[in-house]
Amino acid sequence: MTDFRVYVLRLGHRLLRDARVTTHVLLTARAFGASGAIYSGERDAKLEETVRDVVERWGGDFEVRYEKDWRSVLSGWKDRGSICHLTMYGIPVDECIDEIPRVGDILVVVGSKKVPRDVYELADFNIAIGNQPHSEVAALAVFLDRLFGGEELKREFNGAKIRIIPQRRGKKVKVSKS
Amino acid sequence: MTDFRVYVLRLGHRLLRDARVTTHVLLTARAFGASGAIYSGERDAKLEETVRDVVERWGGDFEVRYEKDWRSVLSGWKDRGSICHLTMYGIPVDECIDEIPRVGDILVVVGSKKVPRDVYELADFNIAIGNQPHSEVAALAVFLDRLFGGEELKREFNGAKIRIIPQRRGKKVKVSKS
Repeated sequence: MTDFRVYVLRLGHRLLRDARVTTHVLLTARAFGASGAIYSGERDAKLEETVRDVVERWGGDFEVRYEKDWRSVLSGWKDRGSICHLTMYGIPVDECIDEIPRVGDILVVVGSKKVPRDVYELADFNIAIGNQPHSEVAALAVFLDRLFGGEELKREFNGAKIRIIPQRRGKKVKVSKS
Repeated sequence: MTDFRVYVLRLGHRLLRDARVTTHVLLTARAFGASGAIYSGERDAKLEETVRDVVERWGGDFEVRYEKDWRSVLSGWKDRGSICHLTMYGIPVDECIDEIPRVGDILVVVGSKKVPRDVYELADFNIAIGNQPHSEVAALAVFLDRLFGGEELKREFNGAKIRIIPQRRGKKVKVSKS
């Protein structure tokens, strides 16, 4: 579909405080077309299990893994593709989205509370989804939507055991046994 | 800028479990152009304070209020404008976004864990931002971005005490004393 793949790096996960928001970050990454995610901060077996369970049932081959040393992820990424750090201090997305090379593996970095200064230096692009305080989940969703031009919402997830049949009212789900 | 205003209704807030996600929902509503938000479930003074503090510093006139009886909000909305319920079971956003009348006050409904069945009935539109499990924060952001055609990210917030000056590297903030 595209010549590039996208991975998400979630920085500074804290077990209790970030459990749900990081889950939302990772599920948003998957649903909006990323191929996988890496998270740093505190290791969280339950978080990984939640995401793998969604992949198992809803399909696709999204992968999640923990990496303590996020700096080495960033410095090692230079050969794979661009690093896009989402931050409200950055350049408005619509002014810079076309500059991002659509090749290799794009790493999208989203922080939690406070992002260390060197992330701004190691990133190829510091990108704002609006220069207002809101949510890294919202920022990630809109960024991926811009990057994939809306096509990500039409994507099929291979091997899905559960599929939704869109309805004007109510819920309809198709469950495959396999 | 537009002939319609948008409000967000967040259903089923739970004090401990949803504190951060509901904060993200409300701040996303504000940052993506909604005029205000209503939340139901458990009343949360700290949540309201967090949002009002952002409005006080970052500008605009976004309002947040608690409403125990969310059903009366929905049934009373019929005279004001359309009700759009965001749900992964609904019709893909790109297939129905043009059907939404751009007049009056549009109410965007987002649930937390499980949404009562009558919400699907009371809504004028049940809209999916992808038919995959992810996040109400992501869904809200992308929906508002579609509804406002990306213009919401360029909006100025009147009376802001803090403004970000977008940078390629690092942070630059302009603080007005008033």
